[in-house]
Amino acid sequence: MTDEQRLDWLRLIRCENVGPRTFQALVKQYGNPQEALAAVPSLARRGGATGSARICSRAEAEREIKAARSAGVSLVALGEPGYPWRLQMIDDPPPLIAVRGHLPVLERPMVAVVGARNASAAGIKLAGRLTRDLGEAGLVVVSGLARGIDAAAHRASLATGTVAVLAGGHNRIYPPENVELAAAILAHGAALTEMPLDHEPRAHDFPRRNRLISGLAVGVVVIEAARRSGSLITTRLALEQGREVFAVPGSPLDPRAEGCNSLLKQGATLVTEAEDVLAVLRPILGQPLERSMQEPNAQSEPIAPAPPMPEPQLEPGGDERTRIVQLLGPTPVSIDDLVRLAGRSPAVVRIVLLELEVAGRLQRHGGGLVSLV
Amino acid sequence: MTDEQRLDWLRLIRCENVGPRTFQALVKQYGNPQEALAAVPSLARRGGATGSARICSRAEAEREIKAARSAGVSLVALGEPGYPWRLQMIDDPPPLIAVRGHLPVLERPMVAVVGARNASAAGIKLAGRLTRDLGEAGLVVVSGLARGIDAAAHRASLATGTVAVLAGGHNRIYPPENVELAAAILAHGAALTEMPLDHEPRAHDFPRRNRLISGLAVGVVVIEAARRSGSLITTRLALEQGREVFAVPGSPLDPRAEGCNSLLKQGATLVTEAEDVLAVLRPILGQPLERSMQEPNAQSEPIAPAPPMPEPQLEPGGDERTRIVQLLGPTPVSIDDLVRLAGRSPAVVRIVLLELEVAGRLQRHGGGLVSLV
Repeated sequence: MTDEQRLDWLRLIRCENVGPRTFQALVKQYGNPQEALAAVPSLARRGGATGSARICSRAEAEREIKAARSAGVSLVALGEPGYPWRLQMIDDPPPLIAVRGHLPVLERPMVAVVGARNASAAGIKLAGRLTRDLGEAGLVVVSGLARGIDAAAHRASLATGTVAVLAGGHNRIYPPENVELAAAILAHGAALTEMPLDHEPRAHDFPRRNRLISGLAVGVVVIEAARRSGSLITTRLALEQGREVFAVPGSPLDPRAEGCNSLLKQGATLVTEAEDVLAVLRPILGQPLERSMQEPNAQSEPIAPAPPMPEPQLEPGGDERTRIVQLLGPTPVSIDDLVRLAGRSPAVVRIVLLELEVAGRLQRHGGGLVSLV
Repeated sequence: MTDEQRLDWLRLIRCENVGPRTFQALVKQYGNPQEALAAVPSLARRGGATGSARICSRAEAEREIKAARSAGVSLVALGEPGYPWRLQMIDDPPPLIAVRGHLPVLERPMVAVVGARNASAAGIKLAGRLTRDLGEAGLVVVSGLARGIDAAAHRASLATGTVAVLAGGHNRIYPPENVELAAAILAHGAALTEMPLDHEPRAHDFPRRNRLISGLAVGVVVIEAARRSGSLITTRLALEQGREVFAVPGSPLDPRAEGCNSLLKQGATLVTEAEDVLAVLRPILGQPLERSMQEPNAQSEPIAPAPPMPEPQLEPGGDERTRIVQLLGPTPVSIDDLVRLAGRSPAVVRIVLLELEVAGRLQRHGGGLVSLV
C-alpha cells in the first residue's frame, strides 16, 4: 500500500459518521477509499445531514500519520501483511489498526483472558497461573489492560507475549495506573487500538473495543465476572464471531462468580487449569502449539479492493428516498426485506442507506440489518 | 406377603455370602426364597465352602423381626406397597429394607443431596439454601446422615420430608453426634437401611449404602466434594442407575471444589440454585411438583416371583464345575461368554455360579459380569 493510499484510508475512517461497517459499504460502492471520500459530502447532504458532515482533511490525516510515526505507532491496513489474520475475518474489522511494540506477536495464535476489575486475591492468582501456562504453551495472551484480571493476565505473559487492546488512543492509556504495565508489554508484546493517538476513551468505546479482544483471539477465557459486566459483553461478541468461550467456576455465594457460572450454564467450557483451554484449542490450531508458531495465513496477500458496483454516482429520486426512509425505524430490518418492500433496485437501496449512514441517521448491525438512529 | 414368607425372605438375605444379587439369582433359580433356602447348604458344599456356610436360622430371623417391631422398624419387601418405586428398579435392590419413621415419605419423589464431611461454612450454607428450596418445591431430600453437607441437607428438610439412608443398623446410628438429628428426621421423614438392627457399620458398608441413596432419588446433587470422595462414588452409582447428576461449582483453588468441578467437566448439570435442579427434574417427574405428589407406581402390586427355572435341583458333574472354575479369575467376565467358552448349558453354568457364590468364592458385578473373589 502506498503512503497516498494509506492517507485515503485514514481520511475515510476518520470522517464523521463513518465506522468500520460504513467504511466497508462505501468502499464496496465506490471501489476504493479515494472515490468514497469524494462522494461523502454529497451523500451526507442527500441523507439529510444537519450542517455539513465533518470530512477528515488531508492535512489532519497527514498530521496523525506523522504523530503516530514519531510515537513509534504503525498504522496497519486491513489485508496488509501484519494485520492479524483472525481479526480480518470478523464482521466489522477496523480498516486501520494503530500498533505499537513488537509487531510479529500479532501473527501468532492468541487467546483472550479477561475478567473483573475488582478481582479477588484468588481470581488474581488464578489469572496469573492460567495465563502463564497458556503463554508457555505457545499462545499470545490478549486482554484489555484494565485493573484486576486483565492486568494480572498481561503481567503473567510479559515474557511469552501479550497484546493490550486499548479503548482510547496510544497517548491516553487508561487506567493511568497501568501506564508502566503498558510500556512493559511492548518489549515482547504489543498494544493496539483503532482510535486516534489522542482519543480519550469514553464509556461506549469499551464495548466497541471488546470486539477486537475477542476478534484477535481463538477463544476467550473469563475469570471472575459479575452479572452485566464488560467481560460478558466480550463473550457475547466472541460467540457472534464464532470464538470459543471458557469460564472459570466459582462458589454460588460469590457475586464475582455469577457471570462465569451463568456462562457455564449456557455451555461455556469449564476451566480449572490451562489444559482445559488447550484441549479445545489444539484441534483448532493444529499440533503442536509452539512459541514460534504463526497463524496459517499471517503472510497472505493484502485483500484486493472489490470491483466498484455499477453506477457508483447513481442518485436516487426524492420519492425513492422517502419510500425507503418510511420503511425504516428503530427496529433493525434486513436490507433484503427493504429491497423487496420498497420495490426498488438493490443499487438504489444501497445508495440511500449510505446517504443516511454518512448523515449520521442510520446504524448498521451484524447480519445485514439496519435501523434508524 | 404373609409373616411366614417375610421370614423366609429375611432368612435368605441374612445367610452368609448372600447379598442382593445372589438373592435374586437364587430366587430366579428356585422360584422362591423358601426353596432357595433349602438349597443353600448343598450349593455351598458343592461350591467348595470352607467349613459350613452360615445359614440364618428360623429362630434368629424371628428374633430380628421381633426386635425390629419393638424398635418401631418395619421390614418392607421388594415389590410390596411402600417399597420405594425407584429403588425397586435398580440392578441390585435390597430384598428387604428396614424403615423407621413416617413411611409415606418413601412414596414421594426424592432428590439426593450429598457432599463433604469437612464442609466449609459456605458449603453448609449452600446446602441449607438449596435443600430448603428443593423441599419446598415438593421433593423429599435423601442423604447419608454424615457430618457436614449431609447433616445440613437433612436439617434444612426436616419440615418438608427427608430420608436418611444408614450404612449400619437402626440401633447403630453413625456418627454418634447425629443421633438427635436422626430422631428428628423420623417426625416427617424416615431412616432406612438394608442392615440388621445391631449391625455396626464398617468402611465397605458406606459405598454399598451409597447405591441406595442414588437409587431412591431421581437425581443426586453434590455440594463440595474432594477427589476420590464418597460423594463421587455416589455419583458414579447414580450414573449407572440412570439418575441425573448435579454439581455445585467452586473455585479451582478450593480443594473441596475439585470433585464437583471435575463432575461438571464430565457433563454434570451446574447448580447455583434449586431452580437449576427443578428445571431438569420437572420433565422427568411431570408438572406440577407438589408436596402431596406420589411416585406414579407407588401403589403398584408386588412383583410376582419369577416362575422357577427348569431343573432347579440340577447338579452339575465335577468336570463341568472344574471347567467353569478354570475359566473364571479375578477379572470380571460375562456369564454369556462363560456359557460359550465352557460349552455347557446356561442352566449348568448358572448353578455352578450359585454354588461358588454361596460358598463365598464368587462376586457378581453389574451387567451380568462375575469374578472369583
